[in-house]
Amino acid sequence: HPQFDAATVEAARQSKKLFATGVNASPGAAVGQVYFDADTAEKMAQEKGQDVIMVRPFTKPDDVHGMLAAKGILTSEGGATSHAAVVARQFGVPCIVGASMMAIDMDKRVMKSDGKTVKEGDWISLDGGSGEAYIGKLDLSTPDLEEQTELMTLLDWSDEIARLQVWANADYPADARRARSFGAKGIGLCRTEHMFFEQVRLPFVQKMILNAEEAQKLINNVERLEGFLKTGKIDGQKMRESIREEIEAEFAEAKETLEKSKAAKEYYDALEHLLPSQRSDFYGLFEAMDGLPVIIRLIDPPLHEFLPSQEELLVEVTEMRTKGETEGLEEKETLLAAVEKLHESNPMMGLRGIRLGIVYPDIMRMQVRAIFEAASDAANKGIVVKPEIMIPLTGHVNELKKVQPELESIAKKVMEEKGVEFSYKFGTMIEIPRAALTAGEVAEVAEFFSFGTNDLTQMTFGYSRDDAERNFLINYVDEGILPENPFQVLDRKGVGRLMDIAVREGRKVRPDLEVGICGEHGGDPSSIEFCHLVGNNYVSCSPYRVPVARLAAAQAKVNND
Amino acid sequence: HPQFDAATVEAARQSKKLFATGVNASPGAAVGQVYFDADTAEKMAQEKGQDVIMVRPFTKPDDVHGMLAAKGILTSEGGATSHAAVVARQFGVPCIVGASMMAIDMDKRVMKSDGKTVKEGDWISLDGGSGEAYIGKLDLSTPDLEEQTELMTLLDWSDEIARLQVWANADYPADARRARSFGAKGIGLCRTEHMFFEQVRLPFVQKMILNAEEAQKLINNVERLEGFLKTGKIDGQKMRESIREEIEAEFAEAKETLEKSKAAKEYYDALEHLLPSQRSDFYGLFEAMDGLPVIIRLIDPPLHEFLPSQEELLVEVTEMRTKGETEGLEEKETLLAAVEKLHESNPMMGLRGIRLGIVYPDIMRMQVRAIFEAASDAANKGIVVKPEIMIPLTGHVNELKKVQPELESIAKKVMEEKGVEFSYKFGTMIEIPRAALTAGEVAEVAEFFSFGTNDLTQMTFGYSRDDAERNFLINYVDEGILPENPFQVLDRKGVGRLMDIAVREGRKVRPDLEVGICGEHGGDPSSIEFCHLVGNNYVSCSPYRVPVARLAAAQAKVNND
Repeated sequence: HPQFDAATVEAARQSKKLFATGVNASPGAAVGQVYFDADTAEKMAQEKGQDVIMVRPFTKPDDVHGMLAAKGILTSEGGATSHAAVVARQFGVPCIVGASMMAIDMDKRVMKSDGKTVKEGDWISLDGGSGEAYIGKLDLSTPDLEEQTELMTLLDWSDEIARLQVWANADYPADARRARSFGAKGIGLCRTEHMFFEQVRLPFVQKMILNAEEAQKLINNVERLEGFLKTGKIDGQKMRESIREEIEAEFAEAKETLEKSKAAKEYYDALEHLLPSQRSDFYGLFEAMDGLPVIIRLIDPPLHEFLPSQEELLVEVTEMRTKGETEGLEEKETLLAAVEKLHESNPMMGLRGIRLGIVYPDIMRMQVRAIFEAASDAANKGIVVKPEIMIPLTGHVNELKKVQPELESIAKKVMEEKGVEFSYKFGTMIEIPRAALTAGEVAEVAEFFSFGTNDLTQMTFGYSRDDAERNFLINYVDEGILPENPFQVLDRKGVGRLMDIAVREGRKVRPDLEVGICGEHGGDPSSIEFCHLVGNNYVSCSPYRVPVARLAAAQAKVNND
Repeated sequence: HPQFDAATVEAARQSKKLFATGVNASPGAAVGQVYFDADTAEKMAQEKGQDVIMVRPFTKPDDVHGMLAAKGILTSEGGATSHAAVVARQFGVPCIVGASMMAIDMDKRVMKSDGKTVKEGDWISLDGGSGEAYIGKLDLSTPDLEEQTELMTLLDWSDEIARLQVWANADYPADARRARSFGAKGIGLCRTEHMFFEQVRLPFVQKMILNAEEAQKLINNVERLEGFLKTGKIDGQKMRESIREEIEAEFAEAKETLEKSKAAKEYYDALEHLLPSQRSDFYGLFEAMDGLPVIIRLIDPPLHEFLPSQEELLVEVTEMRTKGETEGLEEKETLLAAVEKLHESNPMMGLRGIRLGIVYPDIMRMQVRAIFEAASDAANKGIVVKPEIMIPLTGHVNELKKVQPELESIAKKVMEEKGVEFSYKFGTMIEIPRAALTAGEVAEVAEFFSFGTNDLTQMTFGYSRDDAERNFLINYVDEGILPENPFQVLDRKGVGRLMDIAVREGRKVRPDLEVGICGEHGGDPSSIEFCHLVGNNYVSCSPYRVPVARLAAAQAKVNND
């Protein structure tokens, strides 16, 4: 969180800028222009790009869109569990509630306190940590941890006490360096697909996706016929000799079709083009984390996420058709057809993660090659590399059995090519309830588990996070149906029970199983305590949360052991 | 399954119509015209409305679209575990594989066997049960169970042996009567929303949906302000007396707004209109099931399912805009905006089931009133009614605590109004993993559990069924990654473990907890055996599967106890 430093606050007090004080409902500092209703706040933020502070007597569920658009929230009524406070904490918006010395006049669009008046559009500054609101714009600062030697000492003590290590989620070398400077002992999650979205790469990613299905169909056909000929069996039954010749001819034809296929060529071209970019991304990570483990997750999201939106394309194509425009229409229609084909009713539970690794195996193969080429190059320069390859979305051990050994053989092959050896791990996320319920089987193959508690929470509750938070989840917390937003604070009874089962049964099979967590919960103190209790080795959180997580890890040990 | 009766088959044999025999890979009889590739088969079925038999040497994953469009499948190669056999069983398509006396000539589009020739487009008849293919159209018959006295006796013996009862899923009185004639001992699932789709009701359902959000917002505002005034607290903090007058004025205004609101009027009108239709549906069910329990599930699907498709509306609106047509445009735009607002990224995990009961409580209230009015009317005519109200999609006991008591009070009120008393139950589906993991808590409120194993399988595996079966699930079964399609045969290790936890921990709290299953698995013998093993009271399946389920229930007892 950005903050106001002590000197800034002192100067503001001296110059009588303190306007009101209330309950410090959600931490962090915010500076912005005041608006007195959600619609105006949202409009000013979105259309005018203003920094907005939303001020209300109290908030209601239908104010949420304004609260989300605001940098900060200030109310004259309510306490730490009021609607404004709960929502603000959930979304990390700095917030002061119950500043009851303030009088808000909604008709005149002004608020008064301590003899001072603030009109709509005026600037104010909120300190959500102290619960103080100031008139005007105070300077925001992002704390530089390394200068705070007392805090650094405290954090070092924490590390000595804690049983849990704190790692960080980082996709880029810069994040990794920041995480390390904050005391992270490893990278718990590098999301490789974020790299796919970079502008120079996206065209190749799209080329890969648009040709994947046709190319794979040809590849599968060749492999299938080859299998018939090699084993002498068709779908498990002995092949009659009378049809061998026919199958041989079909096989020769299938091979030729594959070799001549434009789709297959484009598919392999795209993969080849992506390999060096991914390699250089990974090299930077290994360099930044010299001597520490780096967990890299293979491709996770459904492929349609990398293509343009279906609705936008549909509107464009319909407009062109209606107007009779033909230039470029065919191309757009082809793209639309491809996007429609990839469309899924519930993409969160569709073709993604390890399922992609099975249906389109060349993508993960390319990624593993890139990782091990980068690691080998780094190792050859004297960097100590500890790569851990994480396969997402496993639900059945057979998926891992199908995917992991082949990727391991690529790893070995690359190290051989580069003439270097280092230790590494292959493991899986535990984010599908079934993976947790069958963890004993999964641990026979996976060398580490990392709880993806975002998805695990989605599936355990049956909540699609985007839909739930927009439609009913805030209501649920507000009315006390749920004690907390389970995407913020880990649900111990449901999700936690699955984690406990997974750790116990996984370690029964593989006593040295490394267990971590890489969901957002990794930065939440209550969730960190739970990770300590179930026996995780580490939690991984965003770099900025590392210091707080280190304290929480020590506290968990002190309070429970 | 429809079948050929013995006389028909005998006559066909006598007249030398037997064409070929093979492995009886998937049961049932099929009659249709022969096509030799998936594309043609699909086209003839979809565009020409033909009954199609797809014939291939063997099938591949990209033949599936043709197989799904076909009434039956016939191959010359492969065995009981071949691709054709596995897919056909999964989708219930009659299938014969490995009819190796057949020679298929793909160039000439004919097949020959036993000196007979069948050309593309010719009619053939497949008996998937015996593995025999006949030339021409054999008469299909649906077996009349009651005439088969030996089978009836066997089924009665089965019922005496079995510990599990067999109930049926039925939405309409006709289904219920059929189920009862097949020996069902209750209705395990009546899906109320199917009734919403009927043409005369859909306009009212849509009116209800399109006005729900605005109406509910006004209702909530009135209730919230009323709460402040009644409790003297705002969001848990004491209300300052200085603002009471303001709140009172706001409350009066909110009440007036609600009373004058067109949206609220339309919303209540629609609900009032739906009540008598639902009541008469339920009356018929109680009549048909006189003396037996009837479980009625309250509204389950997301509301957008009752509205037109977003894509179609988007195309229509774009065309009108591009052409400059204005007549009817505004209305369509309004509808599109409403549909877009209801759009969810993953509707399966969005605003549905009990979540609707919390966000829009009046819909379930209307349904419960309709159920109890119907039950009371029936009881007053001497029919023995045993209604059980099933609340779908519970994930946290607090959801039930919020919804169920209020619905129970409506039940009591209606019986009082009608001057009648009968016993009834309120319970919940267990279809969210978290509900199973916290079953002890849930059973404190719910008087019965019914496993919704379709959704429970979706969430436990993280599979969206529609997407999975289309994209990777057939592959998974074909390659042996999954032993079976888990939507057909219950996955004991994952989904089954959750069921076991739920039954044990639910009964610890409520020893007489009634437990059933109403997913498709209720008709599958292996899944029925598992339901016996975990201690279910009944399985509920489609009426046609009741006889098989009764046998399977007895077998489960004999084989395991």
